[in-house]
Amino acid sequence: MLTLKHLPIASFNENIVYLNRNCAAYKTDDINSLVKIEVHGGIKTITAFLQIVDDEGLVAPDELALNDEAFKQINLPEGAKVSLTLSPVPVSTNAIKRKIAGNILTSAEYSAIINDITSKKYSNMDIASFLVASGSFMSAPEVLSLSEAMIGEKVLHWDNESLVVDCHSLGGVPGNKTDIIITAIVGAYGLAMPKTASHSLTSCAGVADTMGVLTNVDFDAERLKALIEENRAAIVSYDKLDICPASRIISNVERQIGIAQQEHIAASILAIKMAAGVTNLLIDIPVGPKSRIKSANEAMRLRKLMEFVGDMLSIDIDVVITDGSEPIGNGIGAVLEARDVIKVLKNSEDAPQDLREKSLFLAGRMLEFDPKLRGGQGYFVAKEILDSGRALEMMNNIIKAQGKVPQPKIGKLSRDITANASGVIEAIDNARINKIGVLAGAGQYAGAGIDLFKKVGDSVEQGEPIYRIYACNSTDFAFANSVVDAYTGYEIVSSDDVEA
Amino acid sequence: MLTLKHLPIASFNENIVYLNRNCAAYKTDDINSLVKIEVHGGIKTITAFLQIVDDEGLVAPDELALNDEAFKQINLPEGAKVSLTLSPVPVSTNAIKRKIAGNILTSAEYSAIINDITSKKYSNMDIASFLVASGSFMSAPEVLSLSEAMIGEKVLHWDNESLVVDCHSLGGVPGNKTDIIITAIVGAYGLAMPKTASHSLTSCAGVADTMGVLTNVDFDAERLKALIEENRAAIVSYDKLDICPASRIISNVERQIGIAQQEHIAASILAIKMAAGVTNLLIDIPVGPKSRIKSANEAMRLRKLMEFVGDMLSIDIDVVITDGSEPIGNGIGAVLEARDVIKVLKNSEDAPQDLREKSLFLAGRMLEFDPKLRGGQGYFVAKEILDSGRALEMMNNIIKAQGKVPQPKIGKLSRDITANASGVIEAIDNARINKIGVLAGAGQYAGAGIDLFKKVGDSVEQGEPIYRIYACNSTDFAFANSVVDAYTGYEIVSSDDVEA
Repeated sequence: MLTLKHLPIASFNENIVYLNRNCAAYKTDDINSLVKIEVHGGIKTITAFLQIVDDEGLVAPDELALNDEAFKQINLPEGAKVSLTLSPVPVSTNAIKRKIAGNILTSAEYSAIINDITSKKYSNMDIASFLVASGSFMSAPEVLSLSEAMIGEKVLHWDNESLVVDCHSLGGVPGNKTDIIITAIVGAYGLAMPKTASHSLTSCAGVADTMGVLTNVDFDAERLKALIEENRAAIVSYDKLDICPASRIISNVERQIGIAQQEHIAASILAIKMAAGVTNLLIDIPVGPKSRIKSANEAMRLRKLMEFVGDMLSIDIDVVITDGSEPIGNGIGAVLEARDVIKVLKNSEDAPQDLREKSLFLAGRMLEFDPKLRGGQGYFVAKEILDSGRALEMMNNIIKAQGKVPQPKIGKLSRDITANASGVIEAIDNARINKIGVLAGAGQYAGAGIDLFKKVGDSVEQGEPIYRIYACNSTDFAFANSVVDAYTGYEIVSSDDVEA
Repeated sequence: MLTLKHLPIASFNENIVYLNRNCAAYKTDDINSLVKIEVHGGIKTITAFLQIVDDEGLVAPDELALNDEAFKQINLPEGAKVSLTLSPVPVSTNAIKRKIAGNILTSAEYSAIINDITSKKYSNMDIASFLVASGSFMSAPEVLSLSEAMIGEKVLHWDNESLVVDCHSLGGVPGNKTDIIITAIVGAYGLAMPKTASHSLTSCAGVADTMGVLTNVDFDAERLKALIEENRAAIVSYDKLDICPASRIISNVERQIGIAQQEHIAASILAIKMAAGVTNLLIDIPVGPKSRIKSANEAMRLRKLMEFVGDMLSIDIDVVITDGSEPIGNGIGAVLEARDVIKVLKNSEDAPQDLREKSLFLAGRMLEFDPKLRGGQGYFVAKEILDSGRALEMMNNIIKAQGKVPQPKIGKLSRDITANASGVIEAIDNARINKIGVLAGAGQYAGAGIDLFKKVGDSVEQGEPIYRIYACNSTDFAFANSVVDAYTGYEIVSSDDVEA
């Protein structure tokens, strides 16, 4: 028996067990590869990955230390007596082997895999194996099985609502913060819209980041229900809701390995929205050569897949394919995006028209989830709500209900990037602009980002500023500068070519 | 700038950087997923995975701590000033995406992937992604590219030898320690045989474990050369040779995820033997329903693949397909296997005949690598060397040159497993026997293992012992006992059925 200790180290989802090299209960000096261990003593056995410590001050030979994640899961006090055994490879690993061999997996196999993931029996490398093995070869019924398995035990119920609506836009288009404007319009119309949103994973800002500039977004399920009863609409982050844990773990691994397959995106979005109790869901698939979805064919395949899974899960889905060829709005990064959103809601003269129009179009589609609204009327109702100031009023109510937050400032370091030729902007590379913004610190610092002065079709003179980069510290600023000079992401057709 | 500190924690190949949650140089409180960081200050930038610490005693806000692996790689003293930046996803990740999409990768892409793996830019989950993505879909030229990339910078040269021979047996057959007997025979014949061997990863004993019972097996390249000059033969572990690092890292991940594809096995074996400077290599592929390679077709495919890659790498390969339907010899686990090996070398009356015959057959094939030996004579020469005691003499010389080690004892806990019916042993399940042995502690403790009293074709009476389990501690003993009762791994055809 060993004595339990807590080493306050957070390892992002993985359980770690630390043993002294001269551990009294387990011979560690022969171990030359990663070992998975089961720790016994709590109500539930936990699984953790072994690391060896050579300092008795950190972990003594008669101690067993756990990191934050594992210590929380074992739920015992320091000083408790625990024992350990080697952990076998999880049985569901056989399903991964079957998938590699090209088989169709059963619903039970997907359940077993997701259970092993959420109970931390899988390491991140096991999860990566599963994602890569299943990525390109999932049938539509398999995507349904995966989505069902991911929903999880905790589901929000909206007993007083017949319609609970939400929207989700696939990533890859910088600045695309229509969701916040849509929520204000749909809430003002009167539909219940508990908009759940995520923080940035690989982009310059998630919806939760941009909304987080304006108001608090961290609420649990009870508080979210109260917000909806008060205002009909709210915009909250997934973090405190604590629903669909498998989705978060899988996204984290996808981000790390830089690989995200359509099948997993479809399964994940639908599982999250099912867990949030949504009855009617609008999906926006922006298509563009440098967007996440690159062709109309690909978008259509994803649309059909999501429609199939949605129908089977009895969630009413409307999938819209939109133009994702260039950024939406001018601001990229939480502070700049929040500025654009407020300009649109205030009907300011300099509000970005592309952001306004896309928001109205999508909000119109959402309003038509209401059976009482005549087909084709959604857009005009949405426009009336925005133009009349009712959407702005709703946003103010949402901010008041969710609570003020300290206003983050725009980055103190900035640089204007100028046109290298006179002419017309022919294309803007979403992926490049996103990369420059992320290097400048966007996604991590609300005040970092890019403010676009020119969009596709605009004329520029050589030397005229096309966008401005903002950073909050000199390291990020230097990084962004080091890549922007190689390629700005803007394609300019020179006036000479146009005339010729 | 932060002050460098070493946290003496070993993490099995992965670099970890520890920052205090209130780090002075990097905002960590918003981070909710694994982050890869580059640490600057040493001659070479190193890449490490971030973990967050909440204890100033472990890591202060102005400190940056590294685990064993990362501290060794950065090669700076504690107290040095270092800085950090976020690490981009390695460029070679694009090749993994191309592989998932079904493409043939180029030689340059495999080089880039392996370089990123050995320089620790890949996490274990990145490596798992690569292995799963490439596993089932590699062309023969791709396996060649992977093998070439894995060879690495450090290659042993044998300037005084025209022939340098070695052998390798694919796993899955418990007790299969022909390699040690072959080395004694081939060395006695006079060919240079620097036999390189590995410790157990998932089996009851690797060749290095079994040989480690008899003598020291840890030598660097210089000492190995001296051993070969002295005796013509030696058996050493890969560990201190420090060749082909990619192979070790990849095997470690394969073991963890429980997935090993033929293409990687072929590439890995050939890369290791190339790095060891081998000119002529015998490969033994045991085939059996519960062996690693399960069918003759599969074995033939692997043989052709290894022949192709070997020819391209200009290593002379002889691939032999053998019977892997049941364990070879009686002892399973390092101490028991070493006993069997010595019995064969001593020509003892109770030496396992299957181990003897297979060793002679394979040693004969190896001897025929010598151009001076007439085809078909190898077996008889090998038999003469073994029967005359020259192989035993060579083994004694090898043990004397490599040095004595403390003799590990057989496990003090044991239990006889008995036949549940009278009849004839029809089959022995390799995988089951291996599992029971590993649970009993074999692979970790030299003295743990299984001693088989009956083999396929033997008659048994109900209640007669069929094998004995040995364990070194009560936890392992209990584990082995808990599974053996469900299924012993022995199939017995009852005498009644045979008579009927």
